[in-house]
Formats: sequence, C-alpha cells, structure tokens
Amino acid sequence: MAIKEGLRPGGRSARVQESVHTATRELLEAHERSSVTVPMIAARAGVTPSTIYRRWGDLSALLADVALARMRPDSEPATTGSLRGDLRAWAEQYLDEMSSEPGRNMMRDVQCSVTPGYCVSILSAQLQTIVDRYPNDLPPSVDHLINLLAAPTVFRILFSTAPPTVEELHGLIELALKN
Amino acid sequence: MAIKEGLRPGGRSARVQESVHTATRELLEAHERSSVTVPMIAARAGVTPSTIYRRWGDLSALLADVALARMRPDSEPATTGSLRGDLRAWAEQYLDEMSSEPGRNMMRDVQCSVTPGYCVSILSAQLQTIVDRYPNDLPPSVDHLINLLAAPTVFRILFSTAPPTVEELHGLIELALKN
Repeated sequence: MAIKEGLRPGGRSARVQESVHTATRELLEAHERSSVTVPMIAARAGVTPSTIYRRWGDLSALLADVALARMRPDSEPATTGSLRGDLRAWAEQYLDEMSSEPGRNMMRDVQCSVTPGYCVSILSAQLQTIVDRYPNDLPPSVDHLINLLAAPTVFRILFSTAPPTVEELHGLIELALKN
Repeated sequence: MAIKEGLRPGGRSARVQESVHTATRELLEAHERSSVTVPMIAARAGVTPSTIYRRWGDLSALLADVALARMRPDSEPATTGSLRGDLRAWAEQYLDEMSSEPGRNMMRDVQCSVTPGYCVSILSAQLQTIVDRYPNDLPPSVDHLINLLAAPTVFRILFSTAPPTVEELHGLIELALKN
C-alpha cells in the first residue's frame, strides 16, 4: 500500500488521493461493504480503475488506507498533568475507538493490507508523545506500553467474548509503570 | 458456528463433521483459498450444501471450525518441573504456531466466525493446566497470562513488522510472575 506522507497539498497526486478517499467513504456509507468495487470507486472519484490499482494495488489495500486515514488522530493525546493520567486517558480512548464498528472494520482491513506495521507506527507516535512529556518519571518504553496496553485491548476485542474493562486497563498501566 | 464437543464418536453427526473437515482441508491444500466454495466442499464430502449451511452457517464459520480443530493441541502443555519453565515452553510454542502460515490463516478465519471466544477458551484451558500444576507458587490468573503472553504475541504478528522475540516473551513472563 502506497502511503505517501510527503504529498504536496493541492498537487495532482494529493487531489487524486482526496477524491478517491472521499468516494470510498461515501460508497461505504451507502452500500454493503462487500458490494463496493474498485470500478465503482473509480467512477465516483472521476479517475480510471487503473489509477487506483497502480496507486493502491488492490481494494483491500485502499480500504485499509482509508480506514487508517479515518482513525489517524487529528489531535495530540490528552494532557492531564501526569504520566499515569495521560496513559489512562489514552488507553480508555483507544479501547472506545477499537471497540466501535469503524474500529473493528479498520483492524480487519489493516490485516489485509501489505503494511500492517503502519498501524503500530501511529500508535507508537502517540505513546512517544506521552512518554516524552515526563522524562523525569523514567517512563517505560513505547514497545512495552504497546505490549501491555494496545495488545490486550485489540486481542480481547478480536478473540475474546468481552473487551478489557477500564479497571483491567488501569491495572495494566500500574504494571507498566512498575519498572 | 456450531461446535459440538459432545459428539458421539462414530455417530452420523460425527461422521458428517469428519468428512466435511477432511474435504475442506484437502481442498485448501489443492486450491487458492478464495476459490474454495461450500458446493465444492459438499460435493467432495458427499453431503448437500444445505447440510453444511445448516450446521456451520456459512463458509467462514466452517473454515474457522476446521482451523480451530487443526490448532487444537492434542497433548498437554509440556512439563518442565517449574511454573516459569512451563510458561516459557508454552509461550515459545504458541509464538511458533501463530507465526506460521496455518496460524495466521486460523487467526483470520476465527475473527470471521461468530464464536471467536472459542479460541480464547482453548488457550485458557492450556494455561489453566499449567497454573494448576504449581498451586504453591501462587500463580497469576489465566486472564492475566492471556493479557501478558498471548495478546502481545498475536497483536505483534497481526499488526507489527516483527513478532516478539523469545527474550521479550521471557521478560513478559517475569512480569506476569511478579505479582
């Protein structure tokens, strides 16, 4: 999946991306997911199907790109004044987002994409922002926080009968802060 | 997905299940996954498609059932003489299995099934067997072990660029044993 972070805003490439993303989102709102096709998206976006195939590879990669763009947070993680508080706020929001229908669809699409690692890089950037605020607390590493907070949240949503409770997340945060 | 643990071995129902599972496994070995259909499986298994739909609901539920049957361990977790050793052996084997192609396919199929919780119940039973061997060690709860060992393994395989290393798993086991 071609994710071009360095797109020049307003350039042709950025305009194509914007119109294809918009067409995809609109079609997903109006139709069953399984009935949306690349030719439908191309027609609505005013591009040829081959433009889409050339740029995204296939439908699942495009859906993953659109899903990631939607989930990419447009603001910094909340600041509460403490590392524990920031991690709690982040973990609770992450649980909410991933438990939602768009969150579950995103996780499915991202697994089908060729660059699932991009998802973790978004998470990592958010957690890095939080730990960088509290250098004097000797915060845990971002990888450790992903293993202890993001992983149980996602695993339980995908494979268990119930997502973790907020109390459980708080317990995992205490464990992460113990080191 | 109808998972009938109490099937009478050799009964009609068990024979249907066995022949449908076998037909599915053989077709998956010979064909692209996306080209395997319920009518193909039914023809090979010598049953009607409606038998399959009635029993499993749909193709993804059947694939999940077959995948789970394949992954269901046919032996007890290894005994090493210590809680730490048993957990290490279990975690390393779980990492191997889930990183494999059949493991990844299973995780995908199970997510599409209506009873993904069944997967966690298999895991839980294995971990319960281990902790029950060492009551004097005041072992952590099975849920805690799932959050700290199974979740990071699966999350990193599905969403990150690399699965956890064995050293990382050992570190997570130490953390789980700290409580």
